[in-house]
Amino acid sequence: MKIGVIGLGYWGPNLLRNLFHFPDVQPVGCDSDIKRIDVMKKVFPNAEYNDDYKILLKDDNLKAVVIATPVSTHFEIAKEFLLSGKDVFVEKPLTKSSKEAEELIEIAEKEKRVLMVGHTFMFNPAVLKIKEFIKNGDIGELYYITSTRVNLGIHRKDASVIWDLAPHDLSMIFTWMDADPVHINGVGKESIIKGLPDVAFLQIIFDNGVIADIQVGWLSPSKIRKTIIVGSKKMIEYDDTDPQEKVKVFDSGVDVQETYDYGEYLLQYRTGDIYSPKIPGSEPLKLEMEHFINCIKKREKPISDGKIGLKIVKILEQAESSIKKANGSLI
Amino acid sequence: MKIGVIGLGYWGPNLLRNLFHFPDVQPVGCDSDIKRIDVMKKVFPNAEYNDDYKILLKDDNLKAVVIATPVSTHFEIAKEFLLSGKDVFVEKPLTKSSKEAEELIEIAEKEKRVLMVGHTFMFNPAVLKIKEFIKNGDIGELYYITSTRVNLGIHRKDASVIWDLAPHDLSMIFTWMDADPVHINGVGKESIIKGLPDVAFLQIIFDNGVIADIQVGWLSPSKIRKTIIVGSKKMIEYDDTDPQEKVKVFDSGVDVQETYDYGEYLLQYRTGDIYSPKIPGSEPLKLEMEHFINCIKKREKPISDGKIGLKIVKILEQAESSIKKANGSLI
Amino acid sequence: MKIGVIGLGYWGPNLLRNLFHFPDVQPVGCDSDIKRIDVMKKVFPNAEYNDDYKILLKDDNLKAVVIATPVSTHFEIAKEFLLSGKDVFVEKPLTKSSKEAEELIEIAEKEKRVLMVGHTFMFNPAVLKIKEFIKNGDIGELYYITSTRVNLGIHRKDASVIWDLAPHDLSMIFTWMDADPVHINGVGKESIIKGLPDVAFLQIIFDNGVIADIQVGWLSPSKIRKTIIVGSKKMIEYDDTDPQEKVKVFDSGVDVQETYDYGEYLLQYRTGDIYSPKIPGSEPLKLEMEHFINCIKKREKPISDGKIGLKIVKILEQAESSIKKANGSLI
Amino acid sequence: MKIGVIGLGYWGPNLLRNLFHFPDVQPVGCDSDIKRIDVMKKVFPNAEYNDDYKILLKDDNLKAVVIATPVSTHFEIAKEFLLSGKDVFVEKPLTKSSKEAEELIEIAEKEKRVLMVGHTFMFNPAVLKIKEFIKNGDIGELYYITSTRVNLGIHRKDASVIWDLAPHDLSMIFTWMDADPVHINGVGKESIIKGLPDVAFLQIIFDNGVIADIQVGWLSPSKIRKTIIVGSKKMIEYDDTDPQEKVKVFDSGVDVQETYDYGEYLLQYRTGDIYSPKIPGSEPLKLEMEHFINCIKKREKPISDGKIGLKIVKILEQAESSIKKANGSLI
Repeated sequence: MKIGVIGLGYWGPNLLRNLFHFPDVQPVGCDSDIKRIDVMKKVFPNAEYNDDYKILLKDDNLKAVVIATPVSTHFEIAKEFLLSGKDVFVEKPLTKSSKEAEELIEIAEKEKRVLMVGHTFMFNPAVLKIKEFIKNGDIGELYYITSTRVNLGIHRKDASVIWDLAPHDLSMIFTWMDADPVHINGVGKESIIKGLPDVAFLQIIFDNGVIADIQVGWLSPSKIRKTIIVGSKKMIEYDDTDPQEKVKVFDSGVDVQETYDYGEYLLQYRTGDIYSPKIPGSEPLKLEMEHFINCIKKREKPISDGKIGLKIVKILEQAESSIKKANGSLI
Repeated sequence: MKIGVIGLGYWGPNLLRNLFHFPDVQPVGCDSDIKRIDVMKKVFPNAEYNDDYKILLKDDNLKAVVIATPVSTHFEIAKEFLLSGKDVFVEKPLTKSSKEAEELIEIAEKEKRVLMVGHTFMFNPAVLKIKEFIKNGDIGELYYITSTRVNLGIHRKDASVIWDLAPHDLSMIFTWMDADPVHINGVGKESIIKGLPDVAFLQIIFDNGVIADIQVGWLSPSKIRKTIIVGSKKMIEYDDTDPQEKVKVFDSGVDVQETYDYGEYLLQYRTGDIYSPKIPGSEPLKLEMEHFINCIKKREKPISDGKIGLKIVKILEQAESSIKKANGSLI
Repeated sequence: MKIGVIGLGYWGPNLLRNLFHFPDVQPVGCDSDIKRIDVMKKVFPNAEYNDDYKILLKDDNLKAVVIATPVSTHFEIAKEFLLSGKDVFVEKPLTKSSKEAEELIEIAEKEKRVLMVGHTFMFNPAVLKIKEFIKNGDIGELYYITSTRVNLGIHRKDASVIWDLAPHDLSMIFTWMDADPVHINGVGKESIIKGLPDVAFLQIIFDNGVIADIQVGWLSPSKIRKTIIVGSKKMIEYDDTDPQEKVKVFDSGVDVQETYDYGEYLLQYRTGDIYSPKIPGSEPLKLEMEHFINCIKKREKPISDGKIGLKIVKILEQAESSIKKANGSLI
Repeated sequence: MKIGVIGLGYWGPNLLRNLFHFPDVQPVGCDSDIKRIDVMKKVFPNAEYNDDYKILLKDDNLKAVVIATPVSTHFEIAKEFLLSGKDVFVEKPLTKSSKEAEELIEIAEKEKRVLMVGHTFMFNPAVLKIKEFIKNGDIGELYYITSTRVNLGIHRKDASVIWDLAPHDLSMIFTWMDADPVHINGVGKESIIKGLPDVAFLQIIFDNGVIADIQVGWLSPSKIRKTIIVGSKKMIEYDDTDPQEKVKVFDSGVDVQETYDYGEYLLQYRTGDIYSPKIPGSEPLKLEMEHFINCIKKREKPISDGKIGLKIVKILEQAESSIKKANGSLI
């Protein structure tokens, strides 16, 4: 089974590399830039290569493609492959607009093709361990989630920091709970390049009452990858930069006692044990490719399907429009 | 010179204690609850005490009062003392509405009385050290500020978490820069007590282009007191829980080179030395009381005057209204 | 029941303060320096005071004393009180020589008096929690213990850093295991004051095969209070400066598989969950005083009795002599 | 210029890889295990390979060899190459005994060949930055150095933990100061494999009065790579696991004032700024290979020459013998 990787720039080579884990997959690298192909040939001499994706469209042995081109081209390329009967994996974010995402979903359904989005964090062992704690009721009712994803660099030129980084935090949230946003606020700063926010803040209220606050940035003194999940029974800290204790579960909370005589509340603060489960070291990218291959073989819907991809693109759109409106107050 | 402390609950005793540092001040404790006075008498037997502040209004030897009562009573009590010719220090936040704050400012000006607000962080040595770095141009143009102030407990019953904690972050910001907000977003969660947000997020855009993101909460697994200030030349991290390196100055940033031929940008990321200045251990509260006493003696306007107090109350009001509006989307 | 506190210098006031927790105890402060007594009278006006301990010897209502004088005087004072029929608590280290310690133990036994040593860490909740893990077999066979206790200052003038700080680490070790040293190495540096080591390192082999490495110092850039206990099944880190996770239990180790054919070993490294139990916040000093009072009432042997005190003094003596011998190589 | 790498097991491939940085060097891989060569051929297809080092001895185009075989074979192989007129780089530790090291030095001198030892830390940018601070007098008189190098695994089978890890700490110390040991203590624990210490502690007194305490281990819950250097003027912490602040310079110390009247000392503790210099990210191994190549070309003595290698082997020998003697007390 041949699988093509379209786009061998920054991220594509990682996907190509992971396809070599699967003995029944023959990877095909594809980039319009012949220099990129030459570089890749040295690193992975065992892949096939091609500098024109149109040729892959007609290759009957090619079952599927993995698209890692600039966001603005996702829609066009994915559409062509879906219509040619290929299963399609698109890097996050799915498309540059919700309209495009909706059309892709429709085509995939009609053509009965797999449409998967590269939301890697949905395959991250730490994120999945946290999902367990939430799903089995350990955390209790979810109250709020904060997520910070900042460091110094690298400024992308084709997308603002929100389109680049926030999909990670949003896909984690949708791994943990099934809800829709009812309110979105955003502000952003175009510190270095006019017109391209490199630091942004998002506030989201979901229809299950959970609040999320997301900070993303390319202009921060230290690298921070920290997510806090607070529920009625327990609280979780997930620090992706901690090599030893990525996930910590705090047996902390507030116990409320209503004292009916006075209509008063008596609050008791509880801080108990802290537990840091061992997180398997498996590479999320490999698990993600494995899931894609399984969905191809078993004709199943991926976990990170078009619907999740669309949901996230919609939030990014609304956040961006909220940021633009807010920045309008400055003039 | 007699100075009265009205309200000997949670915070008042700290202010009373600090007044004993000044040999020419005779502290007078005042609380309507006689049991609070009895407790205080044991701890500070050398103060005078009174259970009715109305009597202090008429005491000619009493030059000034420090008001540490519930927020809802600030206006009434402060007004009476100002009109009786006393100088007045009011704990933060100044009043429960901007209308009240405006009236107090007016009265103080008319009566030529000192009106100071207890924004302690304006007297905090770490905050003042950061002010130096900003004012002398080391940091360059300010881009954005984030500030997180969360821990587990204690839920106040008279004020939401925004009115309780956000004044600290706002007063730090106004120590560092002189600007007015042009846009304010807020969301908040009433996790434990209906009607009383205990976790809240604020986004503010100021008229100088600086963005601030503030997180406050009484329901967090770990205590965090962290503020990050990012400018065009340097970046600062201020971690108030770090006993050794409270303030770190990062010689980090992005150098932009325009390449005119192509209208393209070339960005170079710079990460250099990190410098952590020694922060004097002086107690902010003592410095604050000293400043109040000096303003009384020299008839000067305090650094944390009514105008700053009003500015902060206004932001709290708008944040609260934004939160209420956002929560409306849930129904 | 009257209990006297002899010596109201640096440490004595803490012991005096804790005696006030017990309603049936009437504390008596005693110091030959009348100025110290004057200071104490202001802080604790409800204690009796005396500037001559000889008078306490004859006070029939005085059941016991707590001795917090310089180490060199412990023996003399403790002996007099034991011989006068009083129960005696002596601050650590018990005496300045093992000969003195042995004599005190003998007297206490003959006079049927309680002799307790102020090894506070034996009453520290974190140390006791670790004891549980060790005693219930969780840790497996103990391999080694390292303990670091350093910071900047304060140089004592009456004792080297070993006599000042190492008793803490040694008393923790003896809380966790019952063993005798068979080999002791020491080196020390007299950085600031000639003749008085302010940094010292100890290596101890115990007769159960456990190795201990102890670092103590008054001349270190950061405050470190860290003890690591490694066993065949689990490992423990105890960081006394961590407000949130003082004790961490690591489910880590090496599983050995002998492959008989080749006489080779196959080692498998295991790193599992990390668990940080809630440590009660109780003050060790209060628990220590409570234990002393209970021993007085019930005529029982204290946990930190003369024998433990002697064992520690012996190690300090040998360490000191090893240091002196080692420093002899320098000339 | 051909340079051979003898031994392509755990470490050799890293050295081979780094030789490719130098255009005028033709690397030759050599291992008696043909399977290792097959693996390497896939990774570095551009190197020459050989499974018998005897053939390299006679290759006239081969100028030098890098020996990365088990320690017990260093002497034999290095000797043959030196006597065949080749320059020789030997991985640390130089040999398994000081007698062998002395003979190699002698041969190298007689044959006028370069003899360099692979003490990588002597080329580590952080270690060299600290050297600057010490050499320019910033730190003042050196008092003591502690160094901890522990983690979980990997147990070597050909060498105890002291021979494996302590050379790193010792070579750092000799980068910073030129002194000879006058006293060495050691204890070690054979936790997992009888006869092979996997945790060891070293105490060294040098003839300049500096004390060093070294902890090495393969059986520790957390990875620690921390070295502390304390001098009369400043103190340094070097944490090799910290991605952001590897080296911190503390402006801390004790100022002594003698008060002659009483023969008393007045000590004043100083804690000032903390400064963390930017450490260049250059790979030490590349710098090391570069230095070897330069020494070959310019016929110069390497920084990490045979004499340093011998000095370290001597300390390891004495430490080992001290450990054995100490363990004898257990029987």
